[in-house]
Amino acid sequence: MRVLILGIDGYIGWALAQKLASRGHEVFGADNFYTRKRVKEVGSDSVLPIHTLKKRLVDFADFFGKDINFFRGNVADPSFLYTVFRETEPDAVYHLAEQRSAPYSMIGLDQANETMVTNLISTMNLIYASKDVDPKVHIIKLGTMGEYGTPNIDIPEGFFEVEFRGRKDVLPFPRNASSWYHWTKVHDSNNLMFANRLWELKITDVMQGVVYGTQTDEIRKSGLYTRFDIDEIWGTALNRFVAQAVSGLPITPYGKGNQKRGFLSLDDSMNCLTIALEKPPKDGEYRVLNQFDQYYSVNYLAQTVKEVYEETTGKEAEIRHVKNPRVESEDHYYNPDHEKLYNLGYRPSGDVRKEIRNMIADLEKYREKCVGLKDVIMPKTFWKRSAGIRE
Amino acid sequence: MRVLILGIDGYIGWALAQKLASRGHEVFGADNFYTRKRVKEVGSDSVLPIHTLKKRLVDFADFFGKDINFFRGNVADPSFLYTVFRETEPDAVYHLAEQRSAPYSMIGLDQANETMVTNLISTMNLIYASKDVDPKVHIIKLGTMGEYGTPNIDIPEGFFEVEFRGRKDVLPFPRNASSWYHWTKVHDSNNLMFANRLWELKITDVMQGVVYGTQTDEIRKSGLYTRFDIDEIWGTALNRFVAQAVSGLPITPYGKGNQKRGFLSLDDSMNCLTIALEKPPKDGEYRVLNQFDQYYSVNYLAQTVKEVYEETTGKEAEIRHVKNPRVESEDHYYNPDHEKLYNLGYRPSGDVRKEIRNMIADLEKYREKCVGLKDVIMPKTFWKRSAGIRE
Repeated sequence: MRVLILGIDGYIGWALAQKLASRGHEVFGADNFYTRKRVKEVGSDSVLPIHTLKKRLVDFADFFGKDINFFRGNVADPSFLYTVFRETEPDAVYHLAEQRSAPYSMIGLDQANETMVTNLISTMNLIYASKDVDPKVHIIKLGTMGEYGTPNIDIPEGFFEVEFRGRKDVLPFPRNASSWYHWTKVHDSNNLMFANRLWELKITDVMQGVVYGTQTDEIRKSGLYTRFDIDEIWGTALNRFVAQAVSGLPITPYGKGNQKRGFLSLDDSMNCLTIALEKPPKDGEYRVLNQFDQYYSVNYLAQTVKEVYEETTGKEAEIRHVKNPRVESEDHYYNPDHEKLYNLGYRPSGDVRKEIRNMIADLEKYREKCVGLKDVIMPKTFWKRSAGIRE
Repeated sequence: MRVLILGIDGYIGWALAQKLASRGHEVFGADNFYTRKRVKEVGSDSVLPIHTLKKRLVDFADFFGKDINFFRGNVADPSFLYTVFRETEPDAVYHLAEQRSAPYSMIGLDQANETMVTNLISTMNLIYASKDVDPKVHIIKLGTMGEYGTPNIDIPEGFFEVEFRGRKDVLPFPRNASSWYHWTKVHDSNNLMFANRLWELKITDVMQGVVYGTQTDEIRKSGLYTRFDIDEIWGTALNRFVAQAVSGLPITPYGKGNQKRGFLSLDDSMNCLTIALEKPPKDGEYRVLNQFDQYYSVNYLAQTVKEVYEETTGKEAEIRHVKNPRVESEDHYYNPDHEKLYNLGYRPSGDVRKEIRNMIADLEKYREKCVGLKDVIMPKTFWKRSAGIRE
């Protein structure tokens, strides 16, 4: 298939390009290097070395024997996106071109508004470009399990049958996110659901869990690392815990650490995203997939990183709880469904201990870089202190 | 109380300023004349004559014996809003400063994106200005009953108890809007609910029905008309029906006309909004009020306008169904709650027939103006044809 990846230069995007090429698809890409720029601004950098996209594309062609047709630009600019659509004529498009950090969105009003505009407008443009250029294109949109929050009832996949005062209907499951970033994903989901009602667009809306890991089948073979962020803004829980252990820093769960979330390895994310592509919804269907392998508490993951690190290296790792910068429940029920991807053939490719071992092995090679970033690992962005405008 | 009205120059805003002044409140206002500009762009105008805001303010001071401190600017500009907050130190702020037309948002991508940005960013700025300047300020935000859509179950006021697979929780009621405009109000509601969770802001989120009418108690006395739009973009159902009858045009329900919506008169809207102000939620409470008097089918309203027009004038009025420009159910269950405002003391000030008589009397004085706008009354903005970017 002809597949367009919006945000091809990112953590998911670059790994996905390799996966799709190895599956025989023709890959097109777009990016404006937003994440590179913003990561630099917080004094951070990908711990695994990544090249310029220009060099990446050369290496990619060398290894996979095919070129990626790349477009530099901003998906929030409608004329750019229309041009890319017309020139690439994709069968499917992955939308990974949003501001993807919850802490970034909570720094202050400027960042909150930037996240609202970047994310909503890019998705609106995608909706209209699809409708106008090819309404049969399959839109695969990255959302997050965080859209649902942590209700005291099971979480279905997008919709559920409600009984209320003796009457029934099938309705969107109520969302209850916990950062401006997560809310933009809810707003996107709502806009996509409506676009499907308006124009019968074919959409897979992926409620993805927290992704961890450095490896995929393809990266193992190609050696073409994807970016790996460990700072408080751009890193995510499990990845940061491993980096902390490798750097000799304490592993720092936020608050009590009983928060539970769905997680999946980078390799599993690739497998799931490929299934979403190759087993598309019907024409005119809006499909919601909850995409994660297992759910874990933050404490379980911290403990597991500690154990695996100590077994693997013989060195000690410490766990130290820190004040939770977020506004979230630290003790809650959590039982989200994730049957649909299993029914489409997804099987986890490994387990969390194996993946942590891989991460430790990869990060040990860049231990000095991890240590060098120790000042940006600890949380400084506190939700309740999100800043107003500068005077 | 010191009360700031964002959007004071609009249909609701100008009537509200008079209501609040007559109740002894100190009124401050802001506007950027967005609606005047956009109405002019579609070749339309308020049927009732309205003066420049400058003249309005002089007339207001003459009649009510007090000045309105007015700020010209855009609420979507954070520094403007912070300045207004700091200078006015309001006890409460009404947010009426959004793009308010569903058809406008459906003209095309430009208008859809403009609606997303204008509405979401103005509310985000309001959230941060409140948090930073005075977290005890009461935010009264205008949303719409259209946020809920038309589910096959009763519609509660904001939240409901869900039982699902044997467990229970109180969750936000699922929203399912029917235009980009209506979705921005959903997004705003979600952002406000989260702001309340973050900073315990005191918020009344008003799910308002369709407002109709030309009169309020204060306008009757002051003679200071509020604007009255009848074109396909800026007019709303019942107001347009009356204008059609007065102009000698057919009354045009969209589609089958069995669509049901909550409605309330302008006078009732003023009463409800005053109750929301004078009976505020507790500090730290996010309160959702469903604000309407009765729900009616579009056909019932068309028939009622026809009957009242014929009784009052002795002339005939015709009803002619036209192709529905919208994407909406034309036959559906509808049973929304609206107990909270009644429990706070709201009693309807009249009935729909009385209000239609008032509207006919007011519009007959400007019959020529209605007739002059006949080319912009009929629907030209079809949801499914919403335009992409210009080539």
